[in-house]
Amino acid sequence: MLSMAQGVLDAQPFSTLVGARATRFTPDGVEVRLALRPDLTQHHGFAHGGLQATLADITLTFMGAAALGPSVLTSEFKINFLRPAQGDTLIGRGSVLSAGKRQAVTRCDLYAAQDGQEKLVATALGTIARADVP
Amino acid sequence: MLSMAQGVLDAQPFSTLVGARATRFTPDGVEVRLALRPDLTQHHGFAHGGLQATLADITLTFMGAAALGPSVLTSEFKINFLRPAQGDTLIGRGSVLSAGKRQAVTRCDLYAAQDGQEKLVATALGTIARADVP
Amino acid sequence: MLSMAQGVLDAQPFSTLVGARATRFTPDGVEVRLALRPDLTQHHGFAHGGLQATLADITLTFMGAAALGPSVLTSEFKINFLRPAQGDTLIGRGSVLSAGKRQAVTRCDLYAAQDGQEKLVATALGTIARADVP
Amino acid sequence: MLSMAQGVLDAQPFSTLVGARATRFTPDGVEVRLALRPDLTQHHGFAHGGLQATLADITLTFMGAAALGPSVLTSEFKINFLRPAQGDTLIGRGSVLSAGKRQAVTRCDLYAAQDGQEKLVATALGTIARADVP
Repeated sequence: MLSMAQGVLDAQPFSTLVGARATRFTPDGVEVRLALRPDLTQHHGFAHGGLQATLADITLTFMGAAALGPSVLTSEFKINFLRPAQGDTLIGRGSVLSAGKRQAVTRCDLYAAQDGQEKLVATALGTIARADVP
Repeated sequence: MLSMAQGVLDAQPFSTLVGARATRFTPDGVEVRLALRPDLTQHHGFAHGGLQATLADITLTFMGAAALGPSVLTSEFKINFLRPAQGDTLIGRGSVLSAGKRQAVTRCDLYAAQDGQEKLVATALGTIARADVP
Repeated sequence: MLSMAQGVLDAQPFSTLVGARATRFTPDGVEVRLALRPDLTQHHGFAHGGLQATLADITLTFMGAAALGPSVLTSEFKINFLRPAQGDTLIGRGSVLSAGKRQAVTRCDLYAAQDGQEKLVATALGTIARADVP
Repeated sequence: MLSMAQGVLDAQPFSTLVGARATRFTPDGVEVRLALRPDLTQHHGFAHGGLQATLADITLTFMGAAALGPSVLTSEFKINFLRPAQGDTLIGRGSVLSAGKRQAVTRCDLYAAQDGQEKLVATALGTIARADVP
């Protein structure tokens, strides 16, 4: 499962550009990580809000795929930024709130880690739809 | 104003990485564009959802800065994906719904354009806070 | 169409409790109004946030029904409160951003009016799903 | 604390109309309940989406007040409806994700209970601002 998930990321040029790596992929929870490289920051050196939204989008969608199957589309999501995201790694952890025949509602918390010390920096909530149901 | 806005983007490594260019910056509306390069897509060749969220984040924040002044932070936003985003250019157009002393609520529509033909592909709604008000 | 829409509201006890009346119902736009009775306010005499969210929910859902057909469910929505809602009437105006086979994305602006003078007080964005598509 | 919280609800005519009762009020978590009376439902007998949004609004705001102090305003929130809300009681449970000088980000899960058996029916995420900070 995890290597399939990584394969999906590897097939997405933008996920590759930001360096996203799938580190957990189960129906109960997923995790996606990326290294907070200098070219992913904003002008104060923190993770750019767009980068955080990108990791949230990937994590929410992965959680939907783990719950619904591989063919999914993200309908929408909301993200709240909680504090500046600083460190060497950005981590998205997803969970599923409900999963039906056609869609799942997923949640994601984002953590910034420095030397393994994590801080919650953002949270997101989204809707993932199955793309293969007519 | 426009060159100052572009200067902010140029100071943000991640905005530079995705190639965002400020093409309008007024208190009544802002526009930010980027070329839909192959490395910004997902596995079907469409603009990645994270890229769209990134452009929404930049456009909403710019709209907040045009309304409130340059020192702003994005508190939160929501994005709805409306249809696959395909073409040579992704365009974000922002407007302001309310602006007070401490925060503004801004809206942004995203368009994908091919040879100047535009289609609405996503919409976003967010809250931008002044960072310099104690 | 309008009387059918009002019939739906009349069949919903909670819509009746808050006094919602359908005043426009077309695929291009809908309008729902309610009188800002004292029992619908919060402690400062403004329209309660929950009441505004209720009118947003009704308006977004109506807009989805006008676009997709009568059998719809609201998947989710977001509301931003822009300023205190004071007056004799609360008005929701909905528009549709996209409508497909299975869902529509709808937008709604809320206005508070006193003697016909309107002020924008809140805005909402939501996803409406068809309930009769398997 | 709990009786003060109930006092706030009692001072809000709309909270009184829907019968909201504060059953927990601590900086770590709040709970608000209401009886699912027939006049609070939609046409299938489930809790109306607007009622759920109302309880979410109250719960998120209470959580913000428990974290920031009594003088707060709800800036915005998003709600996802997960399944039909049926039973004798609707329960909102709030938690806080971050609380700063000027605002808090709060989360709320809604449960419908029948004879004490609870089901998660909706989730919400919002931003609460201090009203007394200039």
